[in-house]
Amino acid sequence: MTTEMSFVDSALRGWKSNVERADKLFGALSPEQLEKEVAPGKNRLIYLWGHLAAVNDGLLPLLGIGERLHPEFDGMFISNPDKSVQLTVSGQSLKAAWQEINQKLWDGFLKFSASDWAQRHTAVSEEDFKREPHRNRFTALLGRTAHLAYHVGQATLAQPKA
Amino acid sequence: MTTEMSFVDSALRGWKSNVERADKLFGALSPEQLEKEVAPGKNRLIYLWGHLAAVNDGLLPLLGIGERLHPEFDGMFISNPDKSVQLTVSGQSLKAAWQEINQKLWDGFLKFSASDWAQRHTAVSEEDFKREPHRNRFTALLGRTAHLAYHVGQATLAQPKA
Repeated sequence: MTTEMSFVDSALRGWKSNVERADKLFGALSPEQLEKEVAPGKNRLIYLWGHLAAVNDGLLPLLGIGERLHPEFDGMFISNPDKSVQLTVSGQSLKAAWQEINQKLWDGFLKFSASDWAQRHTAVSEEDFKREPHRNRFTALLGRTAHLAYHVGQATLAQPKA
Repeated sequence: MTTEMSFVDSALRGWKSNVERADKLFGALSPEQLEKEVAPGKNRLIYLWGHLAAVNDGLLPLLGIGERLHPEFDGMFISNPDKSVQLTVSGQSLKAAWQEINQKLWDGFLKFSASDWAQRHTAVSEEDFKREPHRNRFTALLGRTAHLAYHVGQATLAQPKA
């Protein structure tokens, strides 16, 4: 494997392991448990899960993999804070959406060459990319991986004891 | 910049931005605020900060940058849970240690070529590395970046309102 593909491999492993941690944590929760706040007055588990699903969904167009699958999640899980909007998604449908989003991302990731990963993402113009070449797909992947870890860390605090 | 150095650049940016988030969050806390738990019955902020410092310190020998600066942190912040051992470090000395550790890491990071990043870390034998070439410095850096994000996410829950 070339050095550049070895770096892609590392990044994909990191992404996958954080998605799997989230899968395991959120996927095991009952509807009642999903209502629990991670700390008093803070986000509920269902909000964090929906937030991660919505942000990951946004990676589909950002990386040029495809259209968003669930743009309707943004109003519930990104642009408004928890408990300010009625959720129109159940834990079960969120789980299905989460899996669908991550599968489509993963299929897309595996098609990228090292050079594809180094190309600009769709939120930066060609002109800006010349000055800021770090605004590429690879950086976006690493950023979203840290975003997953950040909220999974919070979610573990409300996790029921095994 | 070559594709492989562009990936290293992305990873270093990700590391730096997470260290800076932790700097800003923990560095602004008073001794009293550092005693606060991130959620009822969970780790205190000072424990999380010490834990991150200890784990980052462990990267020095793992990546072959140098000896550990604060091996004495392990007993307080890694091998024992919070509140089970008397802390012999103040917030102020922890802050100094944190900065010293991250500076030494950063100086070491900047000396590595792309090929250095793809080499095995010191916790894997040459033989095992042949079978598991992903156990390299780059993967370790990404893993520790996610580890930072995970606990910074928790720490924000106890952060005093701005």
